[in-house]
Amino acid sequence: MNAEAIISQLNIELPPPPTPAGVYKPLLIVDNLAYLSGHGPVCSDGSMLQGRVGSEVDLDGGYRAARQTGLALLSTLRHGLGSLDRVVRVVKVLGLVNSTPDFHRHPAVINGCSELFAQVFGQDAGVGTRSALGVAALPGNISVEIEAIFEIS
Amino acid sequence: MNAEAIISQLNIELPPPPTPAGVYKPLLIVDNLAYLSGHGPVCSDGSMLQGRVGSEVDLDGGYRAARQTGLALLSTLRHGLGSLDRVVRVVKVLGLVNSTPDFHRHPAVINGCSELFAQVFGQDAGVGTRSALGVAALPGNISVEIEAIFEIS
Amino acid sequence: MNAEAIISQLNIELPPPPTPAGVYKPLLIVDNLAYLSGHGPVCSDGSMLQGRVGSEVDLDGGYRAARQTGLALLSTLRHGLGSLDRVVRVVKVLGLVNSTPDFHRHPAVINGCSELFAQVFGQDAGVGTRSALGVAALPGNISVEIEAIFEIS
Repeated sequence: MNAEAIISQLNIELPPPPTPAGVYKPLLIVDNLAYLSGHGPVCSDGSMLQGRVGSEVDLDGGYRAARQTGLALLSTLRHGLGSLDRVVRVVKVLGLVNSTPDFHRHPAVINGCSELFAQVFGQDAGVGTRSALGVAALPGNISVEIEAIFEIS
Repeated sequence: MNAEAIISQLNIELPPPPTPAGVYKPLLIVDNLAYLSGHGPVCSDGSMLQGRVGSEVDLDGGYRAARQTGLALLSTLRHGLGSLDRVVRVVKVLGLVNSTPDFHRHPAVINGCSELFAQVFGQDAGVGTRSALGVAALPGNISVEIEAIFEIS
Repeated sequence: MNAEAIISQLNIELPPPPTPAGVYKPLLIVDNLAYLSGHGPVCSDGSMLQGRVGSEVDLDGGYRAARQTGLALLSTLRHGLGSLDRVVRVVKVLGLVNSTPDFHRHPAVINGCSELFAQVFGQDAGVGTRSALGVAALPGNISVEIEAIFEIS
């Protein structure tokens, strides 16, 4: 089953494609690769999930923020490509967690995005390479920021 | 108007191309992409803009550091390509801000680089994808570090 | 001399290819590029080099962690490609140091990986672009995390 059909069937709701917070494009296509800017956890009402993971937000809250960030990335992709069915595979994900210095479960947080992609694009095409890390601070104190590269047709 | 003509007309001064601080190349070309290593805010006299944004350096100082880092990136590009007129577009910018944990305006800092690129290469070709974030520490306590990918001809 | 012959001659021991710590692939090939996920300093017995550089771990310990991370990256590459002789060149390295806020020698730490690559692939092909930075926290409190892109044949 293709990505758009899966999203329909599972009633996955994408937020509106986020507007840039600075001088950049959310998405740029070069040859067969779609580069996506760092996205945050934008909700359907436009609000952002905020707070540091390890103090203000726990692991589950971080996971939800990563999943919401994944939904925002999909929204930008659909808006730019016309359809998510043009995605061939996830190539690369950079997962940034707004983290206390003693929080160490960044992979489990970023899985919130990666498991969404695996669900939508499949266990092979939806799983790419990834780095997950804890950063000192994120724009607007969002809990998670994720950038990604997709192969497209 | 092309990039070199704009730089001449606006009297934009590029610092000397920075020498690597470790075992890496400042620039590497693969196919139609120019990969640039993380650069810092190198001034024309070779000094670096230092200090943490949010405490030692304010937003304006961070913006100036990001612009100076952009000038260093352009210097490396011109040195490696022969001319900035070979740049087709900015593809991707990773903007790292040496940030206190409670500073949240990283996009406004990194705009210092992005607005320079937009000025030099134009509002379409000069604006690519981007991530901006706050990191715990940077080499030599520089205020900003930026790496980038450009499409070239 | 090619990479596999150098590794044999220098008796360089690669750890077993690390298993992913989350929902991602260690390696993905798109066209002529091999993307590698963020790797940590996995030792041959499967243990990881842990601790923050600048407090729990000193510069030399950070360097050794970066070299061990480089060995883990090579192990994943060999496992995925069949032979390291398929590597054409190092394109890009992102070197993340688990760093105190006042540690500033991240390039010297990440050289532990870069000098290994230069030894194995040569001073030209083994040296690519790079960014090095200090991050607030890393998964499992490892000392270093490195992701990379290689050009392959």
